[in-house]
Amino acid sequence: MEKHILLLPGDGIGPEVTKAAKSVLQSVADRFQHTFTFESHDIGGVAIDNHETPLPEDTVEAARKADAIFLGAVGGPKWDQLPGHMRPEKGLLGIRKQLGLFANLRPVKAFQQLLHASPLKHEVVAASDLLIVRELTGGLYFGEPRERRNNGKTVVDTLAYERREIERIVDQAFQSAQVRKKHLTSVDKANVLESSRMWREVVEEKKAQYPDVTVEHMLVDAAAMKLVTNPAYFDVIVTENMFGDILSDEASVLTGSLGMLPSASLNETGVGLYEPVHGSAPDIAGQNKANPLASILSVAMMLKHSFGMEEEAEQVEAAVQEVLNEGYHTADIDLVGGTVVSGSELARRVVDQI
Amino acid sequence: MEKHILLLPGDGIGPEVTKAAKSVLQSVADRFQHTFTFESHDIGGVAIDNHETPLPEDTVEAARKADAIFLGAVGGPKWDQLPGHMRPEKGLLGIRKQLGLFANLRPVKAFQQLLHASPLKHEVVAASDLLIVRELTGGLYFGEPRERRNNGKTVVDTLAYERREIERIVDQAFQSAQVRKKHLTSVDKANVLESSRMWREVVEEKKAQYPDVTVEHMLVDAAAMKLVTNPAYFDVIVTENMFGDILSDEASVLTGSLGMLPSASLNETGVGLYEPVHGSAPDIAGQNKANPLASILSVAMMLKHSFGMEEEAEQVEAAVQEVLNEGYHTADIDLVGGTVVSGSELARRVVDQI
Ligand SMILES: CC(C)[C@H](C(=O)O)[C@@H](O)C(=O)O
Ligand SMILES: CC(C)[C@H](C(=O)O)[C@@H](O)C(=O)O
Repeated sequence: MEKHILLLPGDGIGPEVTKAAKSVLQSVADRFQHTFTFESHDIGGVAIDNHETPLPEDTVEAARKADAIFLGAVGGPKWDQLPGHMRPEKGLLGIRKQLGLFANLRPVKAFQQLLHASPLKHEVVAASDLLIVRELTGGLYFGEPRERRNNGKTVVDTLAYERREIERIVDQAFQSAQVRKKHLTSVDKANVLESSRMWREVVEEKKAQYPDVTVEHMLVDAAAMKLVTNPAYFDVIVTENMFGDILSDEASVLTGSLGMLPSASLNETGVGLYEPVHGSAPDIAGQNKANPLASILSVAMMLKHSFGMEEEAEQVEAAVQEVLNEGYHTADIDLVGGTVVSGSELARRVVDQI
Repeated sequence: MEKHILLLPGDGIGPEVTKAAKSVLQSVADRFQHTFTFESHDIGGVAIDNHETPLPEDTVEAARKADAIFLGAVGGPKWDQLPGHMRPEKGLLGIRKQLGLFANLRPVKAFQQLLHASPLKHEVVAASDLLIVRELTGGLYFGEPRERRNNGKTVVDTLAYERREIERIVDQAFQSAQVRKKHLTSVDKANVLESSRMWREVVEEKKAQYPDVTVEHMLVDAAAMKLVTNPAYFDVIVTENMFGDILSDEASVLTGSLGMLPSASLNETGVGLYEPVHGSAPDIAGQNKANPLASILSVAMMLKHSFGMEEEAEQVEAAVQEVLNEGYHTADIDLVGGTVVSGSELARRVVDQI
């Protein structure tokens, strides 16, 4: 197959981990006889520096033509004092909205070798393997009005959803559950929010279409508790944008492998943006210390979700597991009896396994 | 001193724990020569059954005249299918709003005897002692409009704040920090919400008035992570209503002592509503199994915050600690080598210590 991939290295360790992701994509192309072409553009802080905007029009154009997008990371202290519309994360929010990347998939899986780094007791966290499906282009993030009123005496933000926005993310979540353990938890705050009551109705309507999936409703406060007390309870969680932001970050630290977590943000045509969950880590940028495994696992998600390459994706995941089994890791990870290597060396070892 | 206390036993185990709370208040009155008078009214499910509304006018009237309010718990499966305005929790939301109970104080402290029941590793959680100050009468909970539009094709909720609502909760939090470890973390989502940007401005403005307090800003997603990875990092957290709902419940399970956690909801005149954090637990209601300690610790908060009775409050807290030291507990708690007793017996043992 021929696929065209847009690389958005971004800021901090973004360029290093993007290089690792690209090398893995190239090795997959070689091994499985695909042709992957690449193009690279600016986003975030580097785009502010080079183009005076966190999301240049060129970048959006290139994104619209790509079959998939890889993003390294955006942000850093250098741009922290700029006004709102010139902040690096506006690039991220902008590309999500402009490409309609409504479905954010955040898997959290325990790597047995890393569980000792978890803040949770081994018996609580060991069996964890969950997926958060977060709505990514609606809710409080984009609702209007969002403004000051009465001479700055009051302020409003708006949590707005179209019913069809809820329907498509709920469909996505049911479908994700069908290829996993068929247990869907829909998280809302239906005892307070009207939007949550609509959310619940949509889930209730949709469930007849997915009779193989067991679905339940849980309040967001209860879900925030249960993620800590019993993460292994969950299979797929679906929730609106802000709740998803909070719960997916809470979930990301449970297994002690934040440096290992990938993400995908998909639109209705299957184009997706793939990025590691960790941030731009400016403190270690440019030192070849950054852990490339979250990015490489994001590549596996790209192969699977945007290109339908199941076998290739499994090969990448197996290669990562194999390198961990051999004890190789970057300095961010504490692996008893393992060998610390640089980020590029770790990526090379994954490539060698493919 | 003479004080008049409104008891709102509510549903499930509410009446049992309210009885325990009352017995402790009476013993404090005897021991310290105060006069506490009591009145009891319906709220929640029992109010729906008796008066066809979760918050009868009588209850509100009585609340307005009381020096402090104790609430047991509201809700249960019996009322789960009723329409929105007839749900038990509407009673709770209503009394918060009508009495202006804007400041919700949720302390989370590790009891050494119970830490083994925590989902977190001992070294992660052992030093935890934090207070969440949650804004309780604004934001998404009460903002208008909250409605369906376009024939049900869209839905909106509104996150609204008046600047003075933010100011008073931020003042409350700074003052709470002053009598604790003087470290305040203000939690918001300023990279997305206009209301959070106003929140940040208010915190920045106020900090000059509290030079002894170190204050920092943290994004809500980062806070949800840090509560799990390093809860001992926090002293006082202040945040808006919905973020506070999620984070305070997340925090409540960290130390393994959910059955032990009290709360206070204060208004501008110092009147407060005190309630245990645990719910109505309908499965064990009426069996004299419910743990009364969260309620008794809520009484301690009442003595301190509404009556200014510091010594009395400390006495109650010490009595609870002493009973735990002696190994007595209810069945919800797993205390190695301890003795399981009924809820009323446990309350009696606390009273005996006072
Ligand atoms: C940078 C920020 C706007 C963003 C969000 O809140 O969506 C980030 O936290 C994320 O989860 O990708
Ligand atoms: C019952 C519900 C409306 C309430 C809230 O969300 O405030 C509860 O979760 C709480 O925290 O007291």
